[in-house]
Amino acid sequence: MTLPPITDPASYLARHTGPDEAEERVMLESLGYGSLDELLDAALPADIRLDELPAREALSETQAQARLRDYAERNTVLRAFYGQGFSDTITPPVIRRNVVENPGWYTAYTPYQPEISQGRLEALLNFQTMVSELTGLPVANASLLDEASATAEAIGLMSRARKKGRGVVLDERLHPQVLAVAAERARAIDLEVTVADLSQELVGEDYCGVVIAYPGTEGDISDPRPVIAAIQERGGLATVVTDLMALMLIESPGELGADIAVGSSQRFGVPLFYGGPHAAFMAVSDALKRQIPGRLVGVSVDAEGAPAYRLALQTREQHIRRERATSNICTAQALLAVTASMYAVYHGPEGLRRIAQRIHDLACDFAASVPQVRHRAFFDTVAVEVADAHAVVEKLAEHGYLVRPISDTLVGVSFGESATEGDVEKLVAAFGGTPAAGASDLAVPRQTPALTHEIFTSIHSETQMLRYLRQLADKDLALDRTMIPLGSCTMKLNPTAGMETITWPEFAGIHPFAPAEQARGWLDLIAELEGWLAELTGYAQVSVQPNAGSQGELAGLLAIRRYHVAKGDGERDICLVPASAHGTNAASATLAHLRVVVVATADDGSIDLADLDAQLAEHGPRVAAIMITYPSTHGVFEDTVRQVCDKVHAVGGQVYIDGANMNALTGLAQPGQFGGDVSHLNLHKTFTIPHGGGGPGVGPVCVAEHLVPFLPSDPTLLDAASPAAVGTGVPISATRHGSAGVLPISWAYIAMMGTAGLARASAGAILSANYVARALEDSFPTLYTGRNGLVAHECILDIRPLTAQSGVTAADVAKRLIDFGFHAPTLAFPVAGTLMVEPTESEDLAELDRFIEAMRTIRAEIDEIIDGRVAYEESVLHHAPYTAWSVSRDEWDHPFTREQAAWPVPALRRTKYFPPVRRLNEAYGDRNLVCSCPPPAAFDVTSEEN
Amino acid sequence: MTLPPITDPASYLARHTGPDEAEERVMLESLGYGSLDELLDAALPADIRLDELPAREALSETQAQARLRDYAERNTVLRAFYGQGFSDTITPPVIRRNVVENPGWYTAYTPYQPEISQGRLEALLNFQTMVSELTGLPVANASLLDEASATAEAIGLMSRARKKGRGVVLDERLHPQVLAVAAERARAIDLEVTVADLSQELVGEDYCGVVIAYPGTEGDISDPRPVIAAIQERGGLATVVTDLMALMLIESPGELGADIAVGSSQRFGVPLFYGGPHAAFMAVSDALKRQIPGRLVGVSVDAEGAPAYRLALQTREQHIRRERATSNICTAQALLAVTASMYAVYHGPEGLRRIAQRIHDLACDFAASVPQVRHRAFFDTVAVEVADAHAVVEKLAEHGYLVRPISDTLVGVSFGESATEGDVEKLVAAFGGTPAAGASDLAVPRQTPALTHEIFTSIHSETQMLRYLRQLADKDLALDRTMIPLGSCTMKLNPTAGMETITWPEFAGIHPFAPAEQARGWLDLIAELEGWLAELTGYAQVSVQPNAGSQGELAGLLAIRRYHVAKGDGERDICLVPASAHGTNAASATLAHLRVVVVATADDGSIDLADLDAQLAEHGPRVAAIMITYPSTHGVFEDTVRQVCDKVHAVGGQVYIDGANMNALTGLAQPGQFGGDVSHLNLHKTFTIPHGGGGPGVGPVCVAEHLVPFLPSDPTLLDAASPAAVGTGVPISATRHGSAGVLPISWAYIAMMGTAGLARASAGAILSANYVARALEDSFPTLYTGRNGLVAHECILDIRPLTAQSGVTAADVAKRLIDFGFHAPTLAFPVAGTLMVEPTESEDLAELDRFIEAMRTIRAEIDEIIDGRVAYEESVLHHAPYTAWSVSRDEWDHPFTREQAAWPVPALRRTKYFPPVRRLNEAYGDRNLVCSCPPPAAFDVTSEEN
Repeated sequence: MTLPPITDPASYLARHTGPDEAEERVMLESLGYGSLDELLDAALPADIRLDELPAREALSETQAQARLRDYAERNTVLRAFYGQGFSDTITPPVIRRNVVENPGWYTAYTPYQPEISQGRLEALLNFQTMVSELTGLPVANASLLDEASATAEAIGLMSRARKKGRGVVLDERLHPQVLAVAAERARAIDLEVTVADLSQELVGEDYCGVVIAYPGTEGDISDPRPVIAAIQERGGLATVVTDLMALMLIESPGELGADIAVGSSQRFGVPLFYGGPHAAFMAVSDALKRQIPGRLVGVSVDAEGAPAYRLALQTREQHIRRERATSNICTAQALLAVTASMYAVYHGPEGLRRIAQRIHDLACDFAASVPQVRHRAFFDTVAVEVADAHAVVEKLAEHGYLVRPISDTLVGVSFGESATEGDVEKLVAAFGGTPAAGASDLAVPRQTPALTHEIFTSIHSETQMLRYLRQLADKDLALDRTMIPLGSCTMKLNPTAGMETITWPEFAGIHPFAPAEQARGWLDLIAELEGWLAELTGYAQVSVQPNAGSQGELAGLLAIRRYHVAKGDGERDICLVPASAHGTNAASATLAHLRVVVVATADDGSIDLADLDAQLAEHGPRVAAIMITYPSTHGVFEDTVRQVCDKVHAVGGQVYIDGANMNALTGLAQPGQFGGDVSHLNLHKTFTIPHGGGGPGVGPVCVAEHLVPFLPSDPTLLDAASPAAVGTGVPISATRHGSAGVLPISWAYIAMMGTAGLARASAGAILSANYVARALEDSFPTLYTGRNGLVAHECILDIRPLTAQSGVTAADVAKRLIDFGFHAPTLAFPVAGTLMVEPTESEDLAELDRFIEAMRTIRAEIDEIIDGRVAYEESVLHHAPYTAWSVSRDEWDHPFTREQAAWPVPALRRTKYFPPVRRLNEAYGDRNLVCSCPPPAAFDVTSEEN
Repeated sequence: MTLPPITDPASYLARHTGPDEAEERVMLESLGYGSLDELLDAALPADIRLDELPAREALSETQAQARLRDYAERNTVLRAFYGQGFSDTITPPVIRRNVVENPGWYTAYTPYQPEISQGRLEALLNFQTMVSELTGLPVANASLLDEASATAEAIGLMSRARKKGRGVVLDERLHPQVLAVAAERARAIDLEVTVADLSQELVGEDYCGVVIAYPGTEGDISDPRPVIAAIQERGGLATVVTDLMALMLIESPGELGADIAVGSSQRFGVPLFYGGPHAAFMAVSDALKRQIPGRLVGVSVDAEGAPAYRLALQTREQHIRRERATSNICTAQALLAVTASMYAVYHGPEGLRRIAQRIHDLACDFAASVPQVRHRAFFDTVAVEVADAHAVVEKLAEHGYLVRPISDTLVGVSFGESATEGDVEKLVAAFGGTPAAGASDLAVPRQTPALTHEIFTSIHSETQMLRYLRQLADKDLALDRTMIPLGSCTMKLNPTAGMETITWPEFAGIHPFAPAEQARGWLDLIAELEGWLAELTGYAQVSVQPNAGSQGELAGLLAIRRYHVAKGDGERDICLVPASAHGTNAASATLAHLRVVVVATADDGSIDLADLDAQLAEHGPRVAAIMITYPSTHGVFEDTVRQVCDKVHAVGGQVYIDGANMNALTGLAQPGQFGGDVSHLNLHKTFTIPHGGGGPGVGPVCVAEHLVPFLPSDPTLLDAASPAAVGTGVPISATRHGSAGVLPISWAYIAMMGTAGLARASAGAILSANYVARALEDSFPTLYTGRNGLVAHECILDIRPLTAQSGVTAADVAKRLIDFGFHAPTLAFPVAGTLMVEPTESEDLAELDRFIEAMRTIRAEIDEIIDGRVAYEESVLHHAPYTAWSVSRDEWDHPFTREQAAWPVPALRRTKYFPPVRRLNEAYGDRNLVCSCPPPAAFDVTSEEN
């Protein structure tokens, strides 16, 4: 395939690509190549290079939006009274526009660098505080992927914390999709699953825990205290799956004795999005707080002792624990957690109580007005017994209402925030009822106050909310201000033309369980996108169900595992993982109940073939799979990838190729063709879904023909009471299409680039990485290179020799970059003491050069230490970064100057970012774990003033 | 009417209102009142207080958007091939989202305070550079209201610059609406208007100038040089009305000898918006540059000598020249000028040339394929001769195309940016033509380069554009970061729920001349809004046609003038204007050919009744009108307003009540009921349309029954060749509904507040102003108060006594407020040496207190000078504001400390805004007038570094 020139400056290809053709020539020349094609020939092994893909013409932004408009119009938005874990809600416009639609929020990365993430860390801490207060449990995370996988995570936590029980009891009153995912995830780690009605007493022994629905899927509320007491008496733990809005009116799980609470925060202002993305939550008792999975924001202090936020207890996380990890949650719906938290901040306890009460009152009126209501006690959902549920559902659809056929003779009507008395009237009429005033029965009405923290009562006007959102966003560095050169994270342009479409009501307003005829547009769009992804990766079929990369990995490994089992090869339980693999790989293997065996890495960073041979010789018949990343996490195209795949296949193992680095391959090579049996993609990396400050993500799983039967199945179609049939797949997310809501972004990207454009993007990514590596070779040599001394789409800058000479660490360099207005590269992955840089094809030459200048300046600062002119402890590097306050207060007692600290290069005079805090004291925060909002007095700067 | 309590925190009323009820109580207590009603009773004269308005229930945000959605769906968006000054264009999504939909841009005020406006000043300078380069004339303004009024302004300019000619010749080839508005505006200032075909030679003498269409309304291009030469030989000037996109391919007016070029920049990425808002432009020769109307951005330097932008030549403007003003342009489509300029920056010369060429090629192909094309030379519009134009138009509508019936036998087909070859095929088929390849004839093809400045080639990728927009927005202070306490400008909340709707394609995509059946939703919405405004003001009828307050004034005065003429009272040509009036009042009177006679102001700031009596006695039979503002520009409710009205009526004059201060009256009193015959409103003040950094604005004119016939007429229905009939109105804008596109914002505001909510907003505005005035009375006493020592919705803080004692000026205080993160209050209006503060009802108590703290701190800084502790020249005030660089560079040679300069109050540690430049040197810029982008080297900070 020949790479297309960028002829039309208004084409999306030209808009997406940072360097223009003149800049590209400069970059190629610096590397000694005459064209992108020449560079590719030199960089890519010939034996994986793709000849040709079916040509797909690139659409313009206008054409792509017109096509998406057409898809949107094929959907039919009814008034959503379906429930089952997804409720009608109202996103306040000020939050929609200034969070969900604001690049300052949505182009941000996960807040691993706390100094440039204080805004979103505060928002996520608000989320944790909200969840903690509503659930009545002291520690909440931020956040999880959906209610179903959150429940699975809770089961895993119970199982680890209470090792003695071999079984878990799941409430049959859980939503079917939650039951299905949780049961299969539990079975995957060899727990025995009992499904029982936990509104009744607990029967049986040998349980690590129970999972109680509160309320149940039919809307019924029953007091969970007897079952909680029963499991705790047996030495087990109690998880309650609950609804944040209901908790405004019913007692909190914590108050009722639960150890863990999980659920979805969707109905706090996050659109239905045809199933996702939405932030799930988990809150735990104090005893469990250090084992909670997922990200946890905590309060610490900075180098000046000022309070500052950061991710706490990161040592728990899979990227550090690797094979000892207990959860693979990384990217986790941060943007939606921010949205939900702002909804709570904006409405406050009084507003939320009014909303919850109105919902409940309407449900009560409805229940009183129709015959044959099944449950007395409910919050928002009324289960009505009818002769023919499907006929009723159809009739209501004609009236514009989407309700739930719970069974053939039971219809669920679930009230949401926008429901009105008019809706009740129409619904009652359609059910043939007689209007009557309802009486409330909440079974366990809430007695404890909720949302008492001052943040929930301090912001009530739209102006205040607007300014609060702006203030927080201004504290952070996102792609709208600077390159984020994060290796393996592919922080490229998130196209506005795609972003604009996700909040169109015809996309955002569709309930995930709406019948196919109402979701025609979604189904068509998803089918087309899955087809394109299969075509690009060279696999037989793709499922977009996994709603994060971690879930894609798990789905892929479960497919492999179930494939072996179906073949009678159930003893294959070893997953080979190279030493350089991302920690999530190992964690996912663990969750798929595979044992991790590490394969050594050779000196050049590639997989050590001799060690691979040795491992295969030793474990051959037990090898389920190898998980490799290509190009490798070392940022090189290994020449041996086909050999590796062949060797593993030879012993009967499957090859999992992690698609994290697809931004170096798309359009150029296909993992499904050079040896992979399964891959997952990260649509939020290569396919331009924004990172959202730590999610949403989408991790489609792509499989070869023989694994197609094992792709994720529809979670609503599984009977959780017995294990999924051998020879089939299992569900991985709460809805069939996972985070469907953001798929139009990737659809638009692929459509607007066209096949040739995608290949060109990959070539551009390779060019940029090599340009940076070459420019920095004298300052920070690249650790690993491949053919012809080239890297793939990222490069690892080795800081260790300099650390040895000067004491300056990779972290010092990362923090110092903030003073130049840059987000740090990836720190200490895959090699400790290094920085991994991935510039992506979207950065223009001036921005690349700005980064190079910053790095060279830092190198000169290091040289001053090496040369003995400055002591490390007194160096400008050691104390970086610098706040505006720190360099403009009267006191200044550093041996370097203010200008050296804040204005190291002249270009900063044009645009200067100041972080709001100095360097974080990480250890302090982990020692003194505070994971909900501190009192405002903690931030009182006046006390320091005296 | 009783004011409603704020019970539901999610109601828009609660979101709109800054203080909650507890805060409101605190504020009332500080003034000694028990309730808002008590305060109103004390503040408002009883004889104007309204008893009751028809109650209109407030809608929620959701309900309001649903109603607007319904209106939107009543519109039918066809492919717009209509032309006539409004072209199909594509707004790049990155610009739509990050300018038009970004509060950082749209909530900004006019850049009168340059230090906090560098971002939008740069964008507007880009606009001027773009217009200047495309038109080939050295100086362009930013910007004007529409092509029609821009043409009228050009005629005014020619008439002033060439006093000898009594007539003006207008090209009959101008668009009909341009011809109609320009002719009537020219006649209003007593010019003789000749309408002639200026593609032919110029006939006649005694002209100050000509206005040439280039291209003509039928699309025809003819060489304007003969007519330009002919008028210049006669001592007159030549204005060319042109099309920026055409100018990419045809020679620039400047190169062809024109003195003035005007037109609309709509087709540079600004949606059709059913007629507006769009930015018009004017560019002039060097000889005319100091007389150009409207705002002009220029380059100057700051106190440190760094280049910095500001509005140049403000001494030309009506707010300074008052009765000597020659134009009344103030608010002028800044947001749309920014949008158009960014479109040019993004596409660059190469991209624009491609767009223009594609448009032209399609037009040529179409022309070659249909029979009977009238003109050989054209750019984008083909005039096709047909048997029955209306039948053709109807047939094409059925095919989804909107084309123009130029006459009964001529159809105009105008190609725009989104037109495709497919469109040509369909159009040719519908016209019964035969596809053929076209040949181009551009009559005067462009030879000179366009858009050569580096800014037009430096930003090509979406990432670059995103960051450029963010960088510029970050330089500025807008409502999304701080209160903007501008007296008389009412910088209140711009509700997102309304803002979101204006870019809906069903609103934004409607051509202004689409037939009524395609614009049903617009017509219904506008009718309802006009009805509500009439109800609120107590007038008989309202027209939203004026697209700025200035145009509303002119429309109102023209209505009065034409009313007198129709009554045979043509000799009434005096307009009484109080000394305290806004300069625009006097300027508008001049444009309506009224002579201004000033009425004195009494010591308490009210109109001096004795002087009024004297003036009426002297001028009685010549008095056309008095123009008053109520509450007065002094910020008080004058008790005598009814008397003033009665006195003027007694001599046969009309009363014009300027609605600038309606935010103190809405729901409480009605100008139409306490004496007004006509008023204009500012929807961008009281009715929440954002200021957009200096526009869009909407200035509806409201009239009593006897003036209804004189409301603005439809500009497309007037035959400009002869004067508008006596007894009728004249058009004031290019389209019947002016800036229709932003009307949904005001509609939403009124709908969401309900009648009682609007009254409460006014009461809140009065409360906030009095709270601030009271809190500052010891620091900065309020100059004028009314009944019970109260002000209305704003207060004038008198700095003059302090200036006398300390040398500190009101400007020093204004600049110093920037260091506290505030936009300055209105400076030196209506009284020199004062600051006028209007906090509005949308600011919460904490923000008001933050302002009060800042002002008190400044007062303490002044006291240090008064007490002799600090010399004025060495004071922190004299040197304010301070950039981040200035307080953190190594050099510091002020007697005050860095902390005193940058961190005067502790709360700044939480959020700190640094202006990008030091105080502007205004005089330098006017002496060295530079009104297009300087070369990048001018900003090279490295040169200073050494």
